[in-house]
Amino acid sequence: MIGENILENIAEIVREKTRIPVYGVDVRRILSALQVTDDFWEIIFYSEVTVPAASEILKELDRKGIVKLSGDVIVITEKGYEIIKKFEIPKPYYKKCPTCSGRGISLEDFEEVLREFKKIAQNRPEAIQQYDQGYVLPEVTVSRVALMANKMDLQNKRLLVIGDDDLTSIAAGLSNLPKEVVVLEIDERLVNFINKISEEYGLKVNAEIYDIRNPLPERHYAKYDTFITDPSETREALRLFISRGISGLHGPRCAGYFGITRAEASLEKWYYLQKMLLDMRVVITDMIHNFNIYVNWGYAEKTRAMQVAPVKKAPKREWYTSTMYRIETLEGFVRYNEPAKEDIYEDEESSTV
Amino acid sequence: MIGENILENIAEIVREKTRIPVYGVDVRRILSALQVTDDFWEIIFYSEVTVPAASEILKELDRKGIVKLSGDVIVITEKGYEIIKKFEIPKPYYKKCPTCSGRGISLEDFEEVLREFKKIAQNRPEAIQQYDQGYVLPEVTVSRVALMANKMDLQNKRLLVIGDDDLTSIAAGLSNLPKEVVVLEIDERLVNFINKISEEYGLKVNAEIYDIRNPLPERHYAKYDTFITDPSETREALRLFISRGISGLHGPRCAGYFGITRAEASLEKWYYLQKMLLDMRVVITDMIHNFNIYVNWGYAEKTRAMQVAPVKKAPKREWYTSTMYRIETLEGFVRYNEPAKEDIYEDEESSTV
Repeated sequence: MIGENILENIAEIVREKTRIPVYGVDVRRILSALQVTDDFWEIIFYSEVTVPAASEILKELDRKGIVKLSGDVIVITEKGYEIIKKFEIPKPYYKKCPTCSGRGISLEDFEEVLREFKKIAQNRPEAIQQYDQGYVLPEVTVSRVALMANKMDLQNKRLLVIGDDDLTSIAAGLSNLPKEVVVLEIDERLVNFINKISEEYGLKVNAEIYDIRNPLPERHYAKYDTFITDPSETREALRLFISRGISGLHGPRCAGYFGITRAEASLEKWYYLQKMLLDMRVVITDMIHNFNIYVNWGYAEKTRAMQVAPVKKAPKREWYTSTMYRIETLEGFVRYNEPAKEDIYEDEESSTV
Repeated sequence: MIGENILENIAEIVREKTRIPVYGVDVRRILSALQVTDDFWEIIFYSEVTVPAASEILKELDRKGIVKLSGDVIVITEKGYEIIKKFEIPKPYYKKCPTCSGRGISLEDFEEVLREFKKIAQNRPEAIQQYDQGYVLPEVTVSRVALMANKMDLQNKRLLVIGDDDLTSIAAGLSNLPKEVVVLEIDERLVNFINKISEEYGLKVNAEIYDIRNPLPERHYAKYDTFITDPSETREALRLFISRGISGLHGPRCAGYFGITRAEASLEKWYYLQKMLLDMRVVITDMIHNFNIYVNWGYAEKTRAMQVAPVKKAPKREWYTSTMYRIETLEGFVRYNEPAKEDIYEDEESSTV
C-alpha cells in the first residue's frame, strides 16, 4: 500500500536533513528523470533539483525501496514503478529549438567572432577550484555577445565584466561593438591571458586584478553602461557579484546580465535573489532558460557535488546549466558597495567548490 | 549648439505630460528606431516605449525640430542627425533565431497539432474591442503548448485558461497531454466556439462564462496544476488576471504563464508587477522576450493607440508583442480572490482599448 503523501513525506525528511527547501514536486521530478537516465548528473539536469537535495532524495528513495543505489547504477524498483503509475509521473520532455538550443539567438552576424574566439580559447587557462571557476561552451560566450547586441547594450557602450573565466570580454572585444570593455578578475592567469590577447588582436579590452569581497574601486564606480557576471551562488556571493555590477553602472536604465543555476540554487534562493534585485530598484527584463551550458570542469572529482553524489561516476555530458537573467536599473536604484560580510563560497545548496 | 541634457529634458517634459515614467533612454531608443523605419508601429516594436509615451516623445521631438511629423511621414531632420551623431545613437539591431523566432521552442513534436489548429482557427470569432481582445499567431499558440510541455506543466495535469481569444485551450487539448483543460472566458462567442470544437474533436476542454472582476468560483478554486492567461495591462487588470490564476492553483510549485508587453507597460509597471508577484510568494522562472506576437486586430482604428499616434497609418506588419512570463508558487503563496476595485480597462499607459 502506497500512502497518498509519500512524495511529500520524503521531501519533508530531506528538507530536515539538508535545510534546503525541498518539495514533493522535487521528488516527483527525480522519479520522472529516472525513467530516462541512470546518470546522476543527467538527473540533476532534468529534475532541476539542487545537487545536495537530489542526493538526499535518492538516498531516501533507496531506503524506502523505491530506487536501488548500487555502485554506479541507480535503478527504479518494482515499488518505484508502482509509485510512478499511481502518481502518473511522466517521463521528462525536453526539446529546445535545434538551431539555437533554446537561447533564441541568431549567430549569423557573429560567425567570424565565433571562429576567432574558438581559436583563442584553445589556449585559455584551465578552470580551477580555488575560485569556483567553470566556463561555458564557446557558442555560449558568443551568444552572450549576440544577446547583449540584440538588447542594444553593447553598441558604443562601456561594458564591465566581473569575473571572466568565460572570456566574454574577448568575444565582446572581437565584435567591435563596445567602446570599451573592462574586466575585473581575481585570477592573475586570466588577467594576463586577456590582456595578452587584447594586445595581440588590438582589442579595447583591459583586465585587472580584483577580489569581489572588496568594494568596487572608485575608478570603476558608476562608469559603465552594462555589466555581465557569472556569480558563485551562495546568498552572499549573489549579493556581492550583482551589487558590484550595479555599483559599476552610471545611471538608470543601464543593464546587467548574470547566470543562475538550479543545480546550486533552489527556487527559494531564486526568490531571495529576485527580492534582493527589486530591493535595489532594478527590474528583471529577461530570463532565458539554460542559456548557459558549462563545459565539464577538470576538478569535478574534488567538489562537494561529487562528495555528496550517491554514485561516484563522472558526468558523461554537459549537465551544469544556468538561466540568463537580464536586469535594468530604474530611477532610485541602489549602488550597494560594502565589503563582504560572510563566506562567499559555501552554503547549504552550493556544491561545485 | 546641442545641450548635454537634451534627451533627458525631453523625457522630463513627456513624463510630466503623460504621467508615464519616461527616461532619456526612451528618447534615445526612438531616435535609434527612426534610423531604420518611419512607421510608428515599428518604432514601438524597436524602441519598446509605451504607445502614449512614444507619441508624446515624437511630438516633442517635432516641436524641437529634431524630427518632422507631416501627414503619414516621420523624418529625422538635420538637427536630428546631429543629435544622433553627438550621442552616438546606433541603429537598432534585432535578429532572433530564424528557426524559432527567438522563442527557443521546437515544434517538431507539435506539427500535427499546429496543422489541426490552423484549420480550426480559420473559423474563430474575430477580436472585439469590448473585451480588449487580440490574438497571437497560430504558431505562437502552439509554441505556448510546447513550452508548457517542456516545463512538464501539461503532462497529466489540469490546465486553467483565463480568457482565451488565443484558443490556447484548443491547442492544449489537441496535444492530448493535459488531463483536463478548463476555460473561463467573458465572451459568449468564444465559449460557444471552444465548446463546439471540443465536442467535435473529442477534446478534454470545457469553457464557461466568467467575468474577471468577480472572484474565482468555489468549484475552480485551488483545483489546477497550471494556469495561463493573457492579461489586460492596467495595474488592476494585471492584479486580477494573475491573482485569479494563482487562486486556481492547488498548491506550492504549480505554474502560471502570462504575456506582458512593453507597448502598454513601462518598465516601472513591470517593476510593480514583479513586486506584486513576489508579495504573493511566487517566483519568476522564465521570461521569454517577444514570445507572443499578435495578429493585427480589426478594431485598431478605434483604439486609444491610434488616437494618440502622431501619424494615422495602420500598421503594415505585426508590431504588438509580449514577453512570456512563467511563475511558480512557493510554500505560503497567497490566493488573493477579492472582487475588482478599479476600472480594469484604462490607465495612463494602456492604449489598445
